[in-house]
Amino acid sequence: MVAAISRKPVHLAYDDPCGSLRLRRALQGYLWRSRSVRCHVDQIVVVNGSQQGLDICSRLLLDAGDRFVMEDPGYQIAKVVFAATGAIAVPVPVDADGLDTKRVAKIEARLAYVTPSHQYPLGGVLPVARRYELLAWARKHDAWLIEDDYDSEYRYDTKPVPPLQTLQDSGRVVYLGTVSKTLSPTLRVGYLVVPAGLQSAFAAAKQVMDRHTPLLEQEALAAMLESGTYEGHVRRARRRNAERRESLLQALHRRFGDRVRVEGAAAGLHLVAWFEGLPIAAEDDLVRTARSKGVGVYPISPLFDQRTAVRPDVVGLVMGYSALDAKQIEKGCKLLADAVEQIDRLANWTR
Amino acid sequence: MVAAISRKPVHLAYDDPCGSLRLRRALQGYLWRSRSVRCHVDQIVVVNGSQQGLDICSRLLLDAGDRFVMEDPGYQIAKVVFAATGAIAVPVPVDADGLDTKRVAKIEARLAYVTPSHQYPLGGVLPVARRYELLAWARKHDAWLIEDDYDSEYRYDTKPVPPLQTLQDSGRVVYLGTVSKTLSPTLRVGYLVVPAGLQSAFAAAKQVMDRHTPLLEQEALAAMLESGTYEGHVRRARRRNAERRESLLQALHRRFGDRVRVEGAAAGLHLVAWFEGLPIAAEDDLVRTARSKGVGVYPISPLFDQRTAVRPDVVGLVMGYSALDAKQIEKGCKLLADAVEQIDRLANWTR
Repeated sequence: MVAAISRKPVHLAYDDPCGSLRLRRALQGYLWRSRSVRCHVDQIVVVNGSQQGLDICSRLLLDAGDRFVMEDPGYQIAKVVFAATGAIAVPVPVDADGLDTKRVAKIEARLAYVTPSHQYPLGGVLPVARRYELLAWARKHDAWLIEDDYDSEYRYDTKPVPPLQTLQDSGRVVYLGTVSKTLSPTLRVGYLVVPAGLQSAFAAAKQVMDRHTPLLEQEALAAMLESGTYEGHVRRARRRNAERRESLLQALHRRFGDRVRVEGAAAGLHLVAWFEGLPIAAEDDLVRTARSKGVGVYPISPLFDQRTAVRPDVVGLVMGYSALDAKQIEKGCKLLADAVEQIDRLANWTR
Repeated sequence: MVAAISRKPVHLAYDDPCGSLRLRRALQGYLWRSRSVRCHVDQIVVVNGSQQGLDICSRLLLDAGDRFVMEDPGYQIAKVVFAATGAIAVPVPVDADGLDTKRVAKIEARLAYVTPSHQYPLGGVLPVARRYELLAWARKHDAWLIEDDYDSEYRYDTKPVPPLQTLQDSGRVVYLGTVSKTLSPTLRVGYLVVPAGLQSAFAAAKQVMDRHTPLLEQEALAAMLESGTYEGHVRRARRRNAERRESLLQALHRRFGDRVRVEGAAAGLHLVAWFEGLPIAAEDDLVRTARSKGVGVYPISPLFDQRTAVRPDVVGLVMGYSALDAKQIEKGCKLLADAVEQIDRLANWTR
């Protein structure tokens, strides 16, 4: 009551479901500066981390029985979110350049989930020709492209490639970003850039889902973006992560030499280490042995679609390095080498 | 990688989807002290405000084509959330004691959304006999009861009534609370107490939806609950809101005398003012006229199900008072009286 005369204290009413105008303005500038993304403030929807961004997309853009393209191997959590609507995943293989778009061309689907900046987990950067193929596919099938730009802040040996969203004819792209990899995953702040025609649907969905993202985090992030603190922090984090990546590459080389083949290290916060000569059958053994020595390792095989024939022959580990310092990395690699040696020895004994 | 030896800084990993253990422990104690709710810590799921609580319930407990009972008049936003699954609302009339459970008894449905502590919007407190009827209905139909305890902290003339959740045989009750009415709606913190058998489903759904509620707000609330600051704040807010309620009751009486009949003022943060002799047909006129004088008023009629015959004869306004001080309330009521007078005059002229 009496809303018009009351001038309520700022925090006693619900805010815009798409997020605070201040934060969206700050993100608009940031996305332009850092990712060449041009968008209207109204196209930005602040969400509770990229997870909720995926969830909104799945609820709005997929119906039960629809098909959606997933990179294989790929981010399985996205598959779970999309499949929760009753939609059906269509896995498409990935090579060193990311998603095999020639194969996508033949597929009838409603949506494709892609990580063109840094394929998760293999690390390929999608070449521009493939990007155009993907956009043409989306146009032809009236399909949506969910572009998850989850760790684009971190690139070392490569030049940043602008997102799909910046290309002409990107009207079917939903761009997804997060601060989970730059500030903290427990902040739960991410953002979508949605096509103009979907704005009101996303606003309505976000309102139904939880009204809006908490204001506190939004205001803090807006202040960081406005002052330049955020970009300064990202630069420092990039330098630190580059050092940690270097430590991991060196430690792997020192401990394993040519036996380990590294993939996808040019960007992001993880790499994939393939252990030549360690057959996939030894994977469980390696995980158990490493764990018994106090090292948690994450094999890549669960990131492959379990129904398809594409499967690695040898053990591959997804190794994140951003949360570890050089000493921890060194120690972890030593213990991992011990574990591999133990398994080798066992294999020789039982032969 | 190397998770076990790394001892990651607290905020560099995702947290429990059900919320921080510290907050859930603090809520467990608070719910016991303030609402006689006894539950295991694992039954508590921290959500982004009650809106997300409703959304999780709708996604887990309803399928397309299912029927759900809604109080009529009732909280229409809940209806929107439940209906988003494709389920069908079955409106059941409300009287001065809340939901008419005799009518519910005849209905086959999968879920009922209820506000037994303070019916929204009419303010009735559901008598214990009706509560048992509701529980028996749920048991008979294998239906779920969503108990929205949205403003139970605020009661003035009435004794607090323990929630449905505290009664025997409440295994089909999902209890929903929020700090939106005590701290701020922009914090986006609420909590569910779910039946033991649903724990893992709720945890999985919350994880898919947005991993977890932001940690910052959870830690702040936990600290407030542990130190007693929260309950002190609620006591102060209750006193302040009791004063504001008194101001509104007095201002309404002074300006309108017997013409206004007040309903549901014994608890909560709003009351319903019925304007005797002001036919429902004059509602739009009143809203417009009041707005032209700078007073925003919220008629009750949109809170009735639009398809049923139950409808008010006279204009009723839902008047929230917690965000207004005595002066604003006085001024608002004066302007509202001016608006009513203007409409009366016009009605006489055109007669």
